[in-house]
Amino acid sequence: MTPSPPTLTGLSAFPITPLHDDRVDLDALGRIVAMLSASGVDAIVALGSTGSYASLDRDERQRVVAAAVASAGATPVLAGIGALRTSHAIAYARDAVDAGAQGVLLAPQSYQPLTEDDVYGLYADVLEQVAVPLVVYDNPATTRFAFSDALYGRVASLPGVEALKIPAIPAGVAASDRIARIRDVIPDHITIGISGDASALDALLAGADAWCSVTAGTLPEPALRMTRAALAGDHARAAAEASRMARLWALFAELGSYRVIAAVAEELGMARRSSLPRPILGLDDDQRRRVREVLAMLGAL
Amino acid sequence: MTPSPPTLTGLSAFPITPLHDDRVDLDALGRIVAMLSASGVDAIVALGSTGSYASLDRDERQRVVAAAVASAGATPVLAGIGALRTSHAIAYARDAVDAGAQGVLLAPQSYQPLTEDDVYGLYADVLEQVAVPLVVYDNPATTRFAFSDALYGRVASLPGVEALKIPAIPAGVAASDRIARIRDVIPDHITIGISGDASALDALLAGADAWCSVTAGTLPEPALRMTRAALAGDHARAAAEASRMARLWALFAELGSYRVIAAVAEELGMARRSSLPRPILGLDDDQRRRVREVLAMLGAL
Repeated sequence: MTPSPPTLTGLSAFPITPLHDDRVDLDALGRIVAMLSASGVDAIVALGSTGSYASLDRDERQRVVAAAVASAGATPVLAGIGALRTSHAIAYARDAVDAGAQGVLLAPQSYQPLTEDDVYGLYADVLEQVAVPLVVYDNPATTRFAFSDALYGRVASLPGVEALKIPAIPAGVAASDRIARIRDVIPDHITIGISGDASALDALLAGADAWCSVTAGTLPEPALRMTRAALAGDHARAAAEASRMARLWALFAELGSYRVIAAVAEELGMARRSSLPRPILGLDDDQRRRVREVLAMLGAL
Repeated sequence: MTPSPPTLTGLSAFPITPLHDDRVDLDALGRIVAMLSASGVDAIVALGSTGSYASLDRDERQRVVAAAVASAGATPVLAGIGALRTSHAIAYARDAVDAGAQGVLLAPQSYQPLTEDDVYGLYADVLEQVAVPLVVYDNPATTRFAFSDALYGRVASLPGVEALKIPAIPAGVAASDRIARIRDVIPDHITIGISGDASALDALLAGADAWCSVTAGTLPEPALRMTRAALAGDHARAAAEASRMARLWALFAELGSYRVIAAVAEELGMARRSSLPRPILGLDDDQRRRVREVLAMLGAL
């Protein structure tokens, strides 16, 4: 018997959840997930922030996870279960397990600002009710909650937590210092995934276990090349791959990765136009022209 | 025939929506709403931010609005319809009208940051689908979207918009300048309601039409005295009433009005302990002791 692989190692791809006429386009999602599985990514995360989890209702979420599992082949599928209410997150976690997800991601989504005790209680309550490998998902740009390192330590010590998805390393902070500081406060078995595609390479070279990648959810090939090189210690090749993606990441920084990657998927024919949930309108025509220029440069168009 | 009163004038009370064991406590809500109606507030807003709208599902929201209407007597009931997705806000608006609400409040709730065009489109889409008096609800502390004055003007010009609920006047800005600036960019028929209880008096004296009051949702009497005095031009009496509430508002500033007013309702027996939706834990024992001291000083305990 081999042990099951850790929940978050290597390259985790975060696909969009395409909508059409305010309905989830499960056929398009299935094709995206099948393409990701065929590419060889290590995990597929349905219903990440990039997957619009916060806009979808319970029934839609369950159908999205089921569709992803059905198309993912042997690639593990994890499912975002974020909610503004603990009981909703618990229901989403149960649904995700029922639909075949191998793990769940939970971000402390907020409307009223949350305290550290609220957030600790959220994770404790969910894990008390649902036995499932859980990734702690720290995404302050969307949740508007910033974990302290002490809270990382408290939450990561809860039984069931397997990984920690951290946001981009702040400018001016050495990735190695940041990763080492987090390792100091979390149990040894917890893996660390880095978000913020532009800071992923530094974090991987500094010892992060996984890249939680927006890019890889739609363009897995260059992301895989960078990840494999980085984890093999081939810094030069990894840096060359990252530099090819730098213009895409500059658009992420300027226009938001969520809107840009949806436009990428639409321009490549993976999703129909206006694939984001309204009120989010997505990129305008001029911004899409710039997206196409970057895709042409990447050889994707 | 007399014209129907404007949607937002005088004192609008924003009650909590008490929960118990993760269920909406409609009996407790009905008693609170009946008390507010008997007190003489000008409108009752169910499902404001204070009423935890963002944590409630569609069925719960509809039952809350129906219960509020059933207990409000002749006092108009407005209903919050905020959602992360336009189609959900439209459904909530229809439900609110069906349940007897006389108007709706819509805040541009966000997870992914919204653009001005997204927010304009949200209001335009909702008003195209549902004919109902609408209050534009600007609450950046919870929505994390800040309207520009230009966007106030665009949105307030949409047919159906009757009022604008603005956040607290920033420190260092004269209320009269701020109100005048907003009046410059919105149509004449739009009324302005001020939120942020501690800045309400200055705004009312500077010409705001209504106070959208967290305090009044649980403690209507002192809020009514202040509002009546302010709108009658009795500055001295209004200031004296405001100064009695200053210690309560200092707790709002320190601990959050949402958590403090829920504790007030619990301490006064209007709601059972832990009335807020988890993961929000509410105030701890030491903080509640301070709430009780303030209530005793207000003569409410």
